[in-house]
Amino acid sequence: MLSLDQIKNLSRQSLSKIILLVIDGLGGLPRPDTGKTELETARTPNLDLLASDGICGMIDPVSPGITPGSAPGHLALFGYDPLKFIVGRGILEALGIDFDVKHGDVAARGNFCTIDQNGLVIDRRAGRISNEKNAELCKILGNIVLSDVELHVIPVKEHRFAVIFRGDKLSGDVSDSDPQQVGLAPQAVISLSPAAETVARLANEFISSAKVMLSDHHPANMVLLRGFSQYPNLPTMAEVYKLNAAAIAAYPMYRGLAKLAGMSILDTGTSIEDEFDTLVRNYADYDFFFIHVKKTDSAGEDGDFDTKVKIIEEVDALLPKIIRLEADVLVVSGDHSTPALLKGHSWHPVPTIIRSKWCRPDRVREFSETDCSSGALGRFPGVSVMTLAMANALKLAKYGA
Amino acid sequence: MLSLDQIKNLSRQSLSKIILLVIDGLGGLPRPDTGKTELETARTPNLDLLASDGICGMIDPVSPGITPGSAPGHLALFGYDPLKFIVGRGILEALGIDFDVKHGDVAARGNFCTIDQNGLVIDRRAGRISNEKNAELCKILGNIVLSDVELHVIPVKEHRFAVIFRGDKLSGDVSDSDPQQVGLAPQAVISLSPAAETVARLANEFISSAKVMLSDHHPANMVLLRGFSQYPNLPTMAEVYKLNAAAIAAYPMYRGLAKLAGMSILDTGTSIEDEFDTLVRNYADYDFFFIHVKKTDSAGEDGDFDTKVKIIEEVDALLPKIIRLEADVLVVSGDHSTPALLKGHSWHPVPTIIRSKWCRPDRVREFSETDCSSGALGRFPGVSVMTLAMANALKLAKYGA
Repeated sequence: MLSLDQIKNLSRQSLSKIILLVIDGLGGLPRPDTGKTELETARTPNLDLLASDGICGMIDPVSPGITPGSAPGHLALFGYDPLKFIVGRGILEALGIDFDVKHGDVAARGNFCTIDQNGLVIDRRAGRISNEKNAELCKILGNIVLSDVELHVIPVKEHRFAVIFRGDKLSGDVSDSDPQQVGLAPQAVISLSPAAETVARLANEFISSAKVMLSDHHPANMVLLRGFSQYPNLPTMAEVYKLNAAAIAAYPMYRGLAKLAGMSILDTGTSIEDEFDTLVRNYADYDFFFIHVKKTDSAGEDGDFDTKVKIIEEVDALLPKIIRLEADVLVVSGDHSTPALLKGHSWHPVPTIIRSKWCRPDRVREFSETDCSSGALGRFPGVSVMTLAMANALKLAKYGA
Repeated sequence: MLSLDQIKNLSRQSLSKIILLVIDGLGGLPRPDTGKTELETARTPNLDLLASDGICGMIDPVSPGITPGSAPGHLALFGYDPLKFIVGRGILEALGIDFDVKHGDVAARGNFCTIDQNGLVIDRRAGRISNEKNAELCKILGNIVLSDVELHVIPVKEHRFAVIFRGDKLSGDVSDSDPQQVGLAPQAVISLSPAAETVARLANEFISSAKVMLSDHHPANMVLLRGFSQYPNLPTMAEVYKLNAAAIAAYPMYRGLAKLAGMSILDTGTSIEDEFDTLVRNYADYDFFFIHVKKTDSAGEDGDFDTKVKIIEEVDALLPKIIRLEADVLVVSGDHSTPALLKGHSWHPVPTIIRSKWCRPDRVREFSETDCSSGALGRFPGVSVMTLAMANALKLAKYGA
């Protein structure tokens, strides 16, 4: 595999355009009664046509057998080795609420929790308090004053919030306060390297103050923090690929992941059609588009096979909007599989199409897990998708003399 | 590829069970008159059923084009990168005779050889003396006294023996005494790093004493030592995979390799049926089983195509004993190919089945080299077999946020 520096040396700016359509959690597992996966059950004439015209295969976003989180799955598709570039839990939580994370910020995922009179955690989620209560408590905690840093406490959902420490020379290399099980006391945050002593001290101050301020708010009478992390240092897609890249995603977390890669974020609506229309409207202004369809993954997580089928069919029905743009390269893939049968992300490889004037079409005629498994792209690492897209866009120079 | 440390962070102990059936030297080459390999010639209804229910592919135990020895082939299947974890010749020889190698021991492979009156080697194998003579001579050499170390000289077969130096702070980083060709004198053993000076000195003392003691035992009037090595430091499967792993192998070397990975060794008989019965008997007590079938490899090494076919058929006929256990994950593979036509290990990839409730079955209906080559697992590194088995057993957490 070439390094990003090597790819940077080969990449060439040009007029050709690439569209990367990511159908989140695309891959599935066959329902026992039909033997067909969600994608195989869906009627998808347009995807099948793309599969016929293009070259198909199966990607392992991280590595065979490894179930990717959303961040590694997307980083791989954007061409960044997900074993090298790590997005911490805190950062992802902040990205997920559209918080404008800056380089140097330290973010942590917070839980409101319940402690008993001995200070032991008895409910790690404080009975899943309402979003309203969460917002009220975050506002209270936002009044905590810490020397030398700016503090942001932002509600997420139910018991979840994000806390961001903004200041100079901070490091997120500290331990969690969350003991991860009930019956234990919250742990002191400990610095794991000398540079992180400030954050450890500030986090412990924050937790102590929170404990006092929340004492009257049972069941949300304490906080647990975990996943302290900083914005990872990714070279942008402009630097590596010389692309003027734009992202279209209805959900904040995916806009956040695109921002990590330096993409411009385009305003869009909440439906798949809104997203596709946003692409059409902005098509002239960029040469790379990442479009994200979320609801396939949500349906998979819910174990709702039929809804996942319907959303795939909705994507297929809207696909002519994208096909008519006649992009030089059109990629259809997913960041991981989310089989309805497993109700969660899984390790199964993800069916993938690359369609361009210069791809070498194979015998695949249907966009399905089974057919893509015998496609000419074979089974390959997700991080190669961008290199293949760039090659098919004739944006990569020859390697070596 | 994830490091063992990364896998350790993802692995979860659970009730699910994994069986890894290793058919040694499984892969073959087609006999010109039929165009079918050993596996394709054998009638294997049970393996074919597993292939239909499961997902299939071809593994490269070490790397494409590389012919694996038994140690790298097995380490790969146990999930250890065979390019990183090296088992030396001396250690393998000691494991092959069930010698209880301890951490810190230095083991070497020995040959009895013939030298002429000028001290030059004229037969590196001393005319392949009998096992009885070998045992007699090893007993004599075992009387050599070396300061500070305990010496073990153990007969293997014909001219072969193992010598083990047991003591404190030894290192096996020394050169061979075996010149590897006739017409040369045995070489002095030289330390290749300061820590190995003791072993170099002791090995040379041992060789000098042996020369004196063997002078009346022509043709076995001298020894040659090579492959000085120590027990490699493998994290155990309990540490990496949180598995309580057991090994069932009729041949000592494979028990030794399993011991390297920290598996418990189960007493078994000499036949394949004995091994399978041992599995059934102990099924409740472990969550990972490695079962090793040796005779396919021996037949391949002998160039005996028909015997290899028969042994594969014997495995197939006994397979219902294993299938009936309904393990959560059943893997069938080999440590390398041993085509009867080549009479030895070869680089050809090895057909592999992974069968679980959560695998995504492909179109493979027959367990054969040709069919597995179009299986949905594709062609993949042997070291990924364990990761895939763990994933299919739902024993791996999600990677990344």
